Amino acid sequence: MSLSDHAAMARALKLARRGLYSTHPNPRVGCVLVRDGTVVGEGWHVRAGEPHAEVHALRAAGEQARGATAYVTLEPCSHHGRTGPCADALLAAGVSRVVAAMQDPNPQVAGQGLARLRAVGVQVESGLLEAEARELNLGFISRMERGRPFVRAKLGMSLDGRTAMASGESQWITGPQARQAVQRLRAQSSLIISGADTVLVDQARLTVRAAELGLDEEQTELALSRSPQRLLIDSRLRVPVNAPFYQAGPAWLACKAGQDASAYRAAGHTVLECTDSRPHIDLHALLAQLAALQINEVLVEAGPRLAGAFAAAGLVDEFWLFQAPVLLGSSARPLLDWPLERLADGPRLTVIERRMVGNDQLLIARPSKE
Amino acid sequence: MSLSDHAAMARALKLARRGLYSTHPNPRVGCVLVRDGTVVGEGWHVRAGEPHAEVHALRAAGEQARGATAYVTLEPCSHHGRTGPCADALLAAGVSRVVAAMQDPNPQVAGQGLARLRAVGVQVESGLLEAEARELNLGFISRMERGRPFVRAKLGMSLDGRTAMASGESQWITGPQARQAVQRLRAQSSLIISGADTVLVDQARLTVRAAELGLDEEQTELALSRSPQRLLIDSRLRVPVNAPFYQAGPAWLACKAGQDASAYRAAGHTVLECTDSRPHIDLHALLAQLAALQINEVLVEAGPRLAGAFAAAGLVDEFWLFQAPVLLGSSARPLLDWPLERLADGPRLTVIERRMVGNDQLLIARPSKE
Repeated sequence: MSLSDHAAMARALKLARRGLYSTHPNPRVGCVLVRDGTVVGEGWHVRAGEPHAEVHALRAAGEQARGATAYVTLEPCSHHGRTGPCADALLAAGVSRVVAAMQDPNPQVAGQGLARLRAVGVQVESGLLEAEARELNLGFISRMERGRPFVRAKLGMSLDGRTAMASGESQWITGPQARQAVQRLRAQSSLIISGADTVLVDQARLTVRAAELGLDEEQTELALSRSPQRLLIDSRLRVPVNAPFYQAGPAWLACKAGQDASAYRAAGHTVLECTDSRPHIDLHALLAQLAALQINEVLVEAGPRLAGAFAAAGLVDEFWLFQAPVLLGSSARPLLDWPLERLADGPRLTVIERRMVGNDQLLIARPSKE
Repeated sequence: MSLSDHAAMARALKLARRGLYSTHPNPRVGCVLVRDGTVVGEGWHVRAGEPHAEVHALRAAGEQARGATAYVTLEPCSHHGRTGPCADALLAAGVSRVVAAMQDPNPQVAGQGLARLRAVGVQVESGLLEAEARELNLGFISRMERGRPFVRAKLGMSLDGRTAMASGESQWITGPQARQAVQRLRAQSSLIISGADTVLVDQARLTVRAAELGLDEEQTELALSRSPQRLLIDSRLRVPVNAPFYQAGPAWLACKAGQDASAYRAAGHTVLECTDSRPHIDLHALLAQLAALQINEVLVEAGPRLAGAFAAAGLVDEFWLFQAPVLLGSSARPLLDWPLERLADGPRLTVIERRMVGNDQLLIARPSKE
């Protein structure tokens, strides 16, 4: 049976997903070349600086690329980056039809790669399995389209929505499988953001640990070859430079402008001076700054105060709520420090996934579109 | 193919479930008579004062009961109640083997019905699908074994575990399908308990409404033929006798001893005078009193204060948590008014069921056994 357009693109998406942990700051992209209903070459983008998916697929296909259809999960690039333009490579190989799942999300180049191909007689289509393709690169797309990263907030909570006791005691509310899922979430992120309280109380490093990823050998190796950046929001420099967080490797520090952060710079850390916006720094401005630093996906792993500040500012695109089967009672800390007055002010969420991770339930939810 | 013991008992349990809404204060019981691998009669207990399951099955089988095996979901009674003892009826009909899912939970009669049969040469077994049989009559069993009803607490909450805004605003956090599920839960309960705040703020009646049950004709009719009692815990008589709750029909009122509740008595309501135990009446004593009044299953539909008092006293056997996809924020009311200090004090729950009801998720959870 010859491969349908749909099946070929699904295959290209599957290939693209193999780059989940490694392509940052590039998007994850897969490519499948089909001639006479048979796959003649396929490839996926592994990491920045290495060939794009199309190039891998063309190399695999060799002469068989002539007259083939290329299924790519993202519009082939038309510009000269670290590698040559893929649109030209497809053309040179004699590909006669190109099906893209989506256009380039960069508004300044969107459609140019496809237009270039169409102009010289290649049959061009776009939009097949577009929703799936967009899901795979939410961060890259957000950076291109909105000028800010896609922000996830991870929170471990009880059935009654509490994240810690009033004393701050919070370790091991959720189980080991939830921690493994968080490790994978960290590994796919461009940047982890935490706050001074969390890092001080839990002595948190926020690093990725190979043994806890639960991935196969290839994916573990790819994940470890590209560690996410770690950013501490510590406006008043409360976390000392000898804290485990800073000892774990070069980190980023966001503080208010005018602070003396020389000790952190001297230790090899990157200091982002931020605009003031009580009680935190200006999170909108910070995210714009992070987009400029090519950060696609941000994971906020913080307490209710900082996570609440992101949520209240409308800056959380996706909540990852790990719900443990325990009650912590009415004096325990809230999910988010975010006081609301009227029921109508309560943001509606759309739960896009619910699944068990060990004894805990993971709910992935996004603010509902109005 | 001849019916296996397991399949026959499963059938008997299915029959027993048809009495879910109507057998109170009796247990739900089903009976299947099998001879030569074929069902020759079956029956289920419909309501108190009417024949037991065994009698229905024997009537259906007639002469074919001779030499048959009787599968009953509860040990046949051996005492003269409103109907004659079923053990004798089975014997008289010539049944040669009796398989019971469980013994009578009343410690004073447990095993006597089976012993009586065994003594005269009937082959007797007990314990087949016992867990399923116990689930069906948790309330009846609790009343017999523990001297108190089985208590469920129903709570509608947000993803961040909040039941109402600080102002008390709470209506329609959860959706219409959740309300339908609550209607069915009410209908199977012996008694609904609420508190003065809920009844005053929401003008709640806590009645069963046929149109909202979502049941078939038979089950709707059975549910409406036996309405659950409604009990208001109102220690200081804050809810006036002309409130919708009291206007909706004869109700029970639990207040502190020494209050002048004559107006409520005069209007046809039942007043239970209770021991004081700040800030509420003594809930342990109240439940013992309710067991004496043949209450099997209690549904607590109250705010965080009263539901929290039941939970803090260790009196909630099952939580029904309807979780709406919304955030209500950190100043909203908690799930339960129940302050806890240490993480280790947080009660672990076992979630026995998770399912979607419309846009809300229902979690049914029980305190974990230590």
